[in-house]
Amino acid sequence: MACVGTPRLVSVIGTHHFSTSINQQFDEAQKRLQTLKASPGNEAKLKLYGLFKQATVGKVNTKRPGMTDFVGKAKWDAWNSLNSLSQEEAKNIYIEFVNSLVGPENSAESSAAPKSAAAGFEVSMDGKLRIIRINKPEKKNPFTLKMYLDFAQLLKDAAEDQNTTLVAVTGTGDYFSSGNDLTNFTSFSGSISEAAEEGKRNLKMFVNSLVDFPKPIIGVVNGPAVGIACTILGLMDAVYATDRGWFQTPFSALGQSPEACSSYTFPKLMGSLKANEMLLFNKKITAVEACKLGLVTQVFQDANFQSEVWPKIKEWSELPINSLVYNKQLSRQFDTEILHKVNDAECERLLERWQSEDCMEAIMKFFSKNSK
Amino acid sequence: MACVGTPRLVSVIGTHHFSTSINQQFDEAQKRLQTLKASPGNEAKLKLYGLFKQATVGKVNTKRPGMTDFVGKAKWDAWNSLNSLSQEEAKNIYIEFVNSLVGPENSAESSAAPKSAAAGFEVSMDGKLRIIRINKPEKKNPFTLKMYLDFAQLLKDAAEDQNTTLVAVTGTGDYFSSGNDLTNFTSFSGSISEAAEEGKRNLKMFVNSLVDFPKPIIGVVNGPAVGIACTILGLMDAVYATDRGWFQTPFSALGQSPEACSSYTFPKLMGSLKANEMLLFNKKITAVEACKLGLVTQVFQDANFQSEVWPKIKEWSELPINSLVYNKQLSRQFDTEILHKVNDAECERLLERWQSEDCMEAIMKFFSKNSK
Amino acid sequence: MACVGTPRLVSVIGTHHFSTSINQQFDEAQKRLQTLKASPGNEAKLKLYGLFKQATVGKVNTKRPGMTDFVGKAKWDAWNSLNSLSQEEAKNIYIEFVNSLVGPENSAESSAAPKSAAAGFEVSMDGKLRIIRINKPEKKNPFTLKMYLDFAQLLKDAAEDQNTTLVAVTGTGDYFSSGNDLTNFTSFSGSISEAAEEGKRNLKMFVNSLVDFPKPIIGVVNGPAVGIACTILGLMDAVYATDRGWFQTPFSALGQSPEACSSYTFPKLMGSLKANEMLLFNKKITAVEACKLGLVTQVFQDANFQSEVWPKIKEWSELPINSLVYNKQLSRQFDTEILHKVNDAECERLLERWQSEDCMEAIMKFFSKNSK
Repeated sequence: MACVGTPRLVSVIGTHHFSTSINQQFDEAQKRLQTLKASPGNEAKLKLYGLFKQATVGKVNTKRPGMTDFVGKAKWDAWNSLNSLSQEEAKNIYIEFVNSLVGPENSAESSAAPKSAAAGFEVSMDGKLRIIRINKPEKKNPFTLKMYLDFAQLLKDAAEDQNTTLVAVTGTGDYFSSGNDLTNFTSFSGSISEAAEEGKRNLKMFVNSLVDFPKPIIGVVNGPAVGIACTILGLMDAVYATDRGWFQTPFSALGQSPEACSSYTFPKLMGSLKANEMLLFNKKITAVEACKLGLVTQVFQDANFQSEVWPKIKEWSELPINSLVYNKQLSRQFDTEILHKVNDAECERLLERWQSEDCMEAIMKFFSKNSK
Repeated sequence: MACVGTPRLVSVIGTHHFSTSINQQFDEAQKRLQTLKASPGNEAKLKLYGLFKQATVGKVNTKRPGMTDFVGKAKWDAWNSLNSLSQEEAKNIYIEFVNSLVGPENSAESSAAPKSAAAGFEVSMDGKLRIIRINKPEKKNPFTLKMYLDFAQLLKDAAEDQNTTLVAVTGTGDYFSSGNDLTNFTSFSGSISEAAEEGKRNLKMFVNSLVDFPKPIIGVVNGPAVGIACTILGLMDAVYATDRGWFQTPFSALGQSPEACSSYTFPKLMGSLKANEMLLFNKKITAVEACKLGLVTQVFQDANFQSEVWPKIKEWSELPINSLVYNKQLSRQFDTEILHKVNDAECERLLERWQSEDCMEAIMKFFSKNSK
Repeated sequence: MACVGTPRLVSVIGTHHFSTSINQQFDEAQKRLQTLKASPGNEAKLKLYGLFKQATVGKVNTKRPGMTDFVGKAKWDAWNSLNSLSQEEAKNIYIEFVNSLVGPENSAESSAAPKSAAAGFEVSMDGKLRIIRINKPEKKNPFTLKMYLDFAQLLKDAAEDQNTTLVAVTGTGDYFSSGNDLTNFTSFSGSISEAAEEGKRNLKMFVNSLVDFPKPIIGVVNGPAVGIACTILGLMDAVYATDRGWFQTPFSALGQSPEACSSYTFPKLMGSLKANEMLLFNKKITAVEACKLGLVTQVFQDANFQSEVWPKIKEWSELPINSLVYNKQLSRQFDTEILHKVNDAECERLLERWQSEDCMEAIMKFFSKNSK
């Protein structure tokens, strides 16, 4: 009956401590229960209630409460369900159940503190909200090949941390992120095909980490979002943007092709006839336009952006984690498989594109323009 | 060639009435044909024409009409197709065909009058438009567990009634509907898990009745639509709302999860980045916002709502029923299977959610707040 | 490594011309290479560079260029990859490779000039942009049965022409197109069912030609777009419209059903609750409304329409063809199969509808109204 998997109540008769009497142990168990830091959940509480009553009173000796006494009925049912147990058996089970609740929990350390962040990122917690900050403002927060892998690891940490309910991704400085670091190709010491292979591998892992992330993840877009920094927004659960931001995916101008499942998410969000202006024809759009197109959930004036967005997200991080996770899961149930297929196809195409004449020429043009 | 299935013309030689001559019967058949209340359809009319000519004139003795005489050509073809029949055979077939058209039809009563409505609903007809009204205004039109089943039955009646082309669902009073009646859980006399099981069963049937409804169904949203009353709108074919209405699905605030396929229809209608504010983060939106998001087809000023919406819907109910049904069928052909799967998954999740700590706490909080 | 398939470098030792010395041939090959009209692509250029260096210098005698000399590294790698070849072998391979590049290309005529257009259409080229113009302005550019087939052939030509990167479809005069020519049914000399069968066949081929068209295709909607002229817009990659245009698909008013996959594309573009007003309830919408609904990419004032749209599209036609084709392919990868199924189901339904009483009555009413 519990939220995620039911703590099983294994048979414990005969495994209790020998040295003290059953009554002493029963008293101790009641005290130890008070040391529990977090609620054990309603199911456990009802079970404890029933065991306590059966242990101290014996069989149910009251009538089942009436129609509208919801809680009273639940407690009565819990007690009544144990009416085949003797009082001693009930005490034994109570003691062991308290041990199972308090014992291991007490010594475990919280894993809430984020591990030291990978280079290029800064990670922090605000209550149950985990904030991943792209943190190379002097270069407009571009993604290097290594950062793709590091980001995937940061999401893995966030998924596993029981104290994190919600993740926000934002950038330090004026840019959200300028996207793929073009020096990924030129500074690579191996052959072009090796660089492309590594790029494909890392990108695929990066995108899959977003596709499979089980908790809500929110883009807090503090400035322009270009290329991969724009396309990943389609894989998030909500996107809030400053009105100073703009959005562009100049794939065909660079001889490249869509990534981060944008060939699927953009048409789904905007409709194909609007999406193609971005995916095929390199259109640059404002935050307000992106919001109308469904790529941004809401736009804020730049002056109020930080002060309005964070309290809102912080509040949501207090919602029941199970409902958040399950509700996201329901919405994604048919898309996850498709998104993986799309990611595979896009990465395969990019492997070809990165080694193509179109792409080489565009990158050479870009660097010759920038070196003037 | 007919609209929905072709009346088969079985071989009838030898099965005609014995007592009167063939010519008498032929004359009678012509008279009986006049008693038909509704047109038998163009195909039948052409067949009757052909048989009549073959029976009275014999083989075709005219030229096929020219290019632009559309109707003339159709009639000529019908006649010509029978040119292997003798006049007597043609008369026999004519007589039996008239019997097949007039015979059973004549004695059948129209099923147009709606059966007495289930408690909580009011059903009426306006021409071919059937109006289902949620009718517990003193309680804001909530849905009890029984009403889920009753609504499914009302849709079954509407689907079967040949006089109904279009269904509109609306509410009496200020609310469209406040959604699921929370006393469904607290007033249930059995255990929590029994209440949850019954809730799941009824909800699934209710939602399936909407998924499978073959005729156009229109939401006439006369006020706020909360929870299930909001989510079912995504399964309708059009939704008209007063600007006084608002929309909310506070699933995670109540420890619950989406229903009525909203985890699928909302992202499809609004895009996932907008839908999640409702599905995950409990956002309450106005009718105008809902219209921009695609959850409402059009919004009307409250003062003119009733006077502007109904004539429009009434007019549509006069459109050819077959085109309406077939056109809806085409639009839904790939979604129906998915919607059933979504409904199953959502109901399974709700069964777990309704018994969860999150949900219990939220409901207790709700009742303790309301009882102060 | 090339864009679309790699020119294979077959072993050519011994197949070179006998009459002249290897050095003469090598010199000639260098000259012939200058006659190449188009770039052979970076891969070929690198191969030519490597062969030339190996042939004239021998094994690589320099160090591999540093980190940021992207082009230098690529050239060095190409040279170095041939270091097992003797200089003579390198010359032979160079000569044959030049032959493979220049030889057949030189004598082939460009296929850029469009074939003489089918009746009712006018085709022209503007650089790499191919413009298909529906050209029966005196009748509002309707589609006859034959024009469906002709249009499919025009798209086949456009797909095959290597000089075409982008296709635009527009209309001459005030209308984009009034849609299906209703005389398709009345002027047909065969039976109704034969006319319907031919209509179905041609329509299916027409729609499939749009579903399968591999290059970007843009609707330049110069005026009203009715019926099939409206529904095909959902299969295009972008749609630009004058604000004088309007859009309508009066299927159910004519007893018909959706075509050109609009039963699938319209709900996908607009959301089902908006799409049904067009698909079920015959709603006529303005260009601005169509743009909000996602059926039009952008709307222009009629006075500036032609002068603003064409330069924009012309510019896009200069983008790398491979990125355009591949990016469209990625966006369509899951839809193509569905679109074919939708087309089949819609055509099957129309075959039934065209022969139905609903449709006959609607068409007869239309002609009797127009003949008064």
